[in-house]
Amino acid sequence: MSKKILVVAGDGIGPEIVAEAIKVLNALQADGAIDVTLEEALVGGAAYDAVGNPLPEETLTKAKASDAVLLGAVGGPKWESLHISKRPERGLLGLRAELGLFANLRPAVLYPQLAAASTLKPEIVAGLDIMIVRELTGDIYFGQPRGVETLPSGERRGINTMVYTESEVERICRVAFDIAMKRGKKVCSVDKANVLECTEMWREVATKTAAEYPEISLSHMYVDNAAMQLVRAPKQFDVMVTGNIFGDILSDCAAMLTGSIGMLPSASLNEKGQGMYEPIHGSAPDIAGRGVANPLATILSVGMMLRYSLDAPEAADRIDAAVFKVLDQGLRTADIMSEGMRQVGTAEMGDAVVAALAGE
Amino acid sequence: MSKKILVVAGDGIGPEIVAEAIKVLNALQADGAIDVTLEEALVGGAAYDAVGNPLPEETLTKAKASDAVLLGAVGGPKWESLHISKRPERGLLGLRAELGLFANLRPAVLYPQLAAASTLKPEIVAGLDIMIVRELTGDIYFGQPRGVETLPSGERRGINTMVYTESEVERICRVAFDIAMKRGKKVCSVDKANVLECTEMWREVATKTAAEYPEISLSHMYVDNAAMQLVRAPKQFDVMVTGNIFGDILSDCAAMLTGSIGMLPSASLNEKGQGMYEPIHGSAPDIAGRGVANPLATILSVGMMLRYSLDAPEAADRIDAAVFKVLDQGLRTADIMSEGMRQVGTAEMGDAVVAALAGE
Ligand SMILES: [Mg+2]
Ligand SMILES: [Mg+2]
Repeated sequence: MSKKILVVAGDGIGPEIVAEAIKVLNALQADGAIDVTLEEALVGGAAYDAVGNPLPEETLTKAKASDAVLLGAVGGPKWESLHISKRPERGLLGLRAELGLFANLRPAVLYPQLAAASTLKPEIVAGLDIMIVRELTGDIYFGQPRGVETLPSGERRGINTMVYTESEVERICRVAFDIAMKRGKKVCSVDKANVLECTEMWREVATKTAAEYPEISLSHMYVDNAAMQLVRAPKQFDVMVTGNIFGDILSDCAAMLTGSIGMLPSASLNEKGQGMYEPIHGSAPDIAGRGVANPLATILSVGMMLRYSLDAPEAADRIDAAVFKVLDQGLRTADIMSEGMRQVGTAEMGDAVVAALAGE
Repeated sequence: MSKKILVVAGDGIGPEIVAEAIKVLNALQADGAIDVTLEEALVGGAAYDAVGNPLPEETLTKAKASDAVLLGAVGGPKWESLHISKRPERGLLGLRAELGLFANLRPAVLYPQLAAASTLKPEIVAGLDIMIVRELTGDIYFGQPRGVETLPSGERRGINTMVYTESEVERICRVAFDIAMKRGKKVCSVDKANVLECTEMWREVATKTAAEYPEISLSHMYVDNAAMQLVRAPKQFDVMVTGNIFGDILSDCAAMLTGSIGMLPSASLNEKGQGMYEPIHGSAPDIAGRGVANPLATILSVGMMLRYSLDAPEAADRIDAAVFKVLDQGLRTADIMSEGMRQVGTAEMGDAVVAALAGE
């Protein structure tokens, strides 16, 4: 049966990069590798401009009825003065919350062809391939009580609460273990169990859940040490699993190790396997509409979609291989350009991936 | 009047590295650069072995009566099975708490002679000189409520609370601004103000306090972006100021950028200017007693002590210059050894610093 994909291009370079990802989906559809139906909807600033709401009811209904959502990017200076409830980012956060997307998958992969882009020495990062699994709906970003109160003395006091239940920890650990089973079978759970009771419980649950995965080698690391180790020897990691705030920090740190964040996709999954897929980079309003944005992170996000929500791992492998091939061919968008390579625009890069998919 | 320094050597390599730091203090005393009185006391595993308590009352009394405490390192496998209240680390935490050491100063400095030790490319890190000012007595590490509760469903739920009052934020910002006034006058305050109300308040207080320091250029950065920027372009930073948990993560990340954590000192100050000074590295039980440990971080901690608690900035400058000189001479302990340099032991390195101080 045909799988449904909702495409929400969003703002800035969103429409341009998503157009290239759609070319890739169409090519795979044409040669019978996948069977998908695409729909489009508005989100972010584009939705606000059209209907006064960054997440229109219609978009949400369509998203819930889809197997996967492909998102470009949202936001831009045009909407920054809006009330927080109307800002483009609300569209994104609303989709995450309404779909229950609790598992954020953030690969940090450094293609050997781009090793020079890293600020780290090539021998430290060449071949880097980490998958960070970040819990996305709990932790201190959502915990109650929260806010700023005024004490009897008149002084203000700010509070946020880190909260996890055992079941929340267990389900994110299962996601990490399942992914690790298809990779190197090594999971590093990151916590601050020596100081924070909440994460001490996290460690216990991770350990207990791992008992059901005898092939998985589980290790534990304190978050401050994890930040050090990512800089010292990042290739020691296979899959990392951690809470929302630690994952926020570590996934961005790991992404930057590659030096080419225009190449990095992401996935956010719920318990039913529905997912939202998007590049980790932003809407880059400064270069929007100029046809120079790098579409590869969005195309690789389609690859993750095929792997994690559409049960088409072979087609996903083909996308990964096609991206590898265009890099081998020396094609580079401006953000990853280096000497001796050939600089191409957004559409030319998308076309090159489609050609590589066809084995040309 | 003579200033009082309490020396607590601690465990593992602690006594060896502290012995070299004392040589440096004695040399400065001998040539009239400083006027100090040294006392010694037990802390950590050494104290537990002697009197059954990692922080004996006598040590605490002496520490409170001192202008500064010089600490080597605490801990080791010998004491790991002890109850948490008796572990060596309790001695350290107890000293911090009892002295009210709320301001942790963590320089991340990469000596040009050691630029190759970094996992980052030399052009990214050579000349790195960041001062991270971390709040040390508040935040989620101390906030109430905390712990693990059992819900009516039988499921457990872990909680920790991030808490800051305005006055806590203001006093740590003042420390950062005061330090920045003696450096590049640039302070980056790190928060997660877009998500956490507690740190939104932090940002407001930082901004308000900065108004009293018209020469300071204050910027704000989200913690996940700060972790990225430390990897991407660490030399953009002069002084960073942040809360306890973000500071824990970022200061370790920044330290590892240098690739030579055997070189990094630290200070923890209270409102009276009393301070505890210690290398950031641990007690390294695996190499203890072999005379191969690097004493330079401890010697540089003495430099910080002279600068921040003993009002002897010129003597502090002399220590920094002497360490620079021994590195220029090609002397290296095992942890920072590289080709073409001369490997020396702990005592020989200490002697070389003393000789460099004397202008030899
Ligand atoms: Mg982030
Ligand atoms: Mg730490």
